[in-house]
Amino acid sequence: MSSPAQPIVPVILSGGSGTRLWPMSTPERPKQFLPLTAEATMFQLTALRARDPDRFASPIIVGAARHAELIEAQLAEIGIVPQAVILEPAARNTAPAIALAAFEAGDAPLLVMPSDHAIADEAAFLDAIEAALPLVREGWLATFGITPDAPETGYGYIRIGERLGEGVHRVERFVEKPDRARAEAMLAEGGHAWNGGIFLFGARAYLDALAVHAPEIHDEAKTAHNAATREGARLLPDPKAFAACPSDSIDYAVMEKAEKVAVAPVAMGWSDVGSWDALHGLAVCDEAGNCSHGPVRLEDSANVYIRSDGVRISALGVEDLIVIASGNEVLIVPKGHSQEVKRFSG
Amino acid sequence: MSSPAQPIVPVILSGGSGTRLWPMSTPERPKQFLPLTAEATMFQLTALRARDPDRFASPIIVGAARHAELIEAQLAEIGIVPQAVILEPAARNTAPAIALAAFEAGDAPLLVMPSDHAIADEAAFLDAIEAALPLVREGWLATFGITPDAPETGYGYIRIGERLGEGVHRVERFVEKPDRARAEAMLAEGGHAWNGGIFLFGARAYLDALAVHAPEIHDEAKTAHNAATREGARLLPDPKAFAACPSDSIDYAVMEKAEKVAVAPVAMGWSDVGSWDALHGLAVCDEAGNCSHGPVRLEDSANVYIRSDGVRISALGVEDLIVIASGNEVLIVPKGHSQEVKRFSG
Repeated sequence: MSSPAQPIVPVILSGGSGTRLWPMSTPERPKQFLPLTAEATMFQLTALRARDPDRFASPIIVGAARHAELIEAQLAEIGIVPQAVILEPAARNTAPAIALAAFEAGDAPLLVMPSDHAIADEAAFLDAIEAALPLVREGWLATFGITPDAPETGYGYIRIGERLGEGVHRVERFVEKPDRARAEAMLAEGGHAWNGGIFLFGARAYLDALAVHAPEIHDEAKTAHNAATREGARLLPDPKAFAACPSDSIDYAVMEKAEKVAVAPVAMGWSDVGSWDALHGLAVCDEAGNCSHGPVRLEDSANVYIRSDGVRISALGVEDLIVIASGNEVLIVPKGHSQEVKRFSG
Repeated sequence: MSSPAQPIVPVILSGGSGTRLWPMSTPERPKQFLPLTAEATMFQLTALRARDPDRFASPIIVGAARHAELIEAQLAEIGIVPQAVILEPAARNTAPAIALAAFEAGDAPLLVMPSDHAIADEAAFLDAIEAALPLVREGWLATFGITPDAPETGYGYIRIGERLGEGVHRVERFVEKPDRARAEAMLAEGGHAWNGGIFLFGARAYLDALAVHAPEIHDEAKTAHNAATREGARLLPDPKAFAACPSDSIDYAVMEKAEKVAVAPVAMGWSDVGSWDALHGLAVCDEAGNCSHGPVRLEDSANVYIRSDGVRISALGVEDLIVIASGNEVLIVPKGHSQEVKRFSG
């Protein structure tokens, strides 16, 4: 269905700081650059997800300047050559980051992917992309709506509207992160999906909508891109113009305001890997629910998630516990409390 | 009451291996050489307990050859000059170790003390020594009976017999480590004390009893002592003779068999510091029952004992947990399970 003449450009957003996965995740090496769900890092898995040359062009990476070497080394490891590595001089949230990629990409369709999400069923993901592509070629902005399986309060929701085609619907409205009761009601009612922050749209369509709904971001990002310095594949946007760019998310700045916004609902084993609890949920555990990585000895324990990249952890008789050791830091937190870990990461 | 002409010789047994306090306690530096209950090590506290020159002569230390430098350095730190440091070429339990000290001491009264016990009330201990001394000068072997405050199953018990004098009784019998029901019965019945492994007797009286009840130990220890090599205060028993010495405890070899065996019951805040749980019990904790040493951050936690000599431990929302980090090892065990730690120490 996709035109061979105009392959999709993967845009990989790798600017996150991942404070909830401290102490493994640090400002120097945030979670997307760690091998948390597999032997490859989450950034590498994201790039590998969109490497089929029949569908995809070389990716554009948008990340923090401090991570330039990490980005390049991790791409080299998996043999992926980016068409551009855009190095943000400061964090300005997703709307400006995607604008830089859009100005760089010309008029290609862009598949915008955060680099710190897990997707178990890649075939389902690729099918959803195929489903959304015809509308995208007609100028629609598409998002992927994750089929919810729990009343999560940490995600935004999408109310799914009228059917626009096979596997794709109009977005009726975006729903902010709900409280527990509201989340349960949406789950019971059906017709809602999680907003996974993955998007497909034409670069021009995105920039046009940005120009209408967030003109300041559009204009400053354009200036920053035009005045960028280039070093090989590296692109360094003009720091002054980019600093002048308002910081805003693509959801607030564009998706919630634009006219032609579609959602492709998809069940693909998606997780934003937002906590150590989430990682335990994704991990392959033994019969007692234990999962360990690194030098770990575990006896008479159950439902334990232990990782160490250095010191040896010996645990005996513990249950429902998360233990993460990295370098000189050891975190100990009961299951269900790992969202609070950011209190330690400062 | 004691004769100024014949002060008591402290005999400090420092050969223990302390596997239950792993990972802090290691074969290279077992628990007696660690500052676990105070800024001084338990070995140092033991030596300081018997340093009053009006009562005590310079101590004799019996320890493992591998700990010679540790013993000497820790004594030097507290300004105590030993009359002898007897370095066992192999571990042969307490009966042979005390025999070596007795051969070295001539005919002085010996106060035999393990170096890895805590005693909170030193005045009570010194009073009990004074109470036992007259009988000891008459040739009795005295032990100190710790007033029990819980139905412990990890200690031997002493059934207290007829009164022999102020604060001192005949030992009616020794009771092996009991099961829970038996321990509870003894506690309810009264008239029993824990066998704390601290002894007071004349060197000659001990050796005479040893010659009768364990003549092989007596003879091989005598040969090992006679053929010992000396280097300053160091005394290295003849390895071949000492290796030929049967390995046995003073309790089995002598105390349970000898005729004139007395017990001085004493409540002195004694603990054998046999586990991390025991150390938590001895520690000064905050209002939530938490106690931490070293680089530790603790939030929303209760009844937690955390020690680290290296890595930083950050714990959140945990309860009833023991965490010990030493060098490259981190132990995590719930309160009440720390006796099982020796499973990891091998």
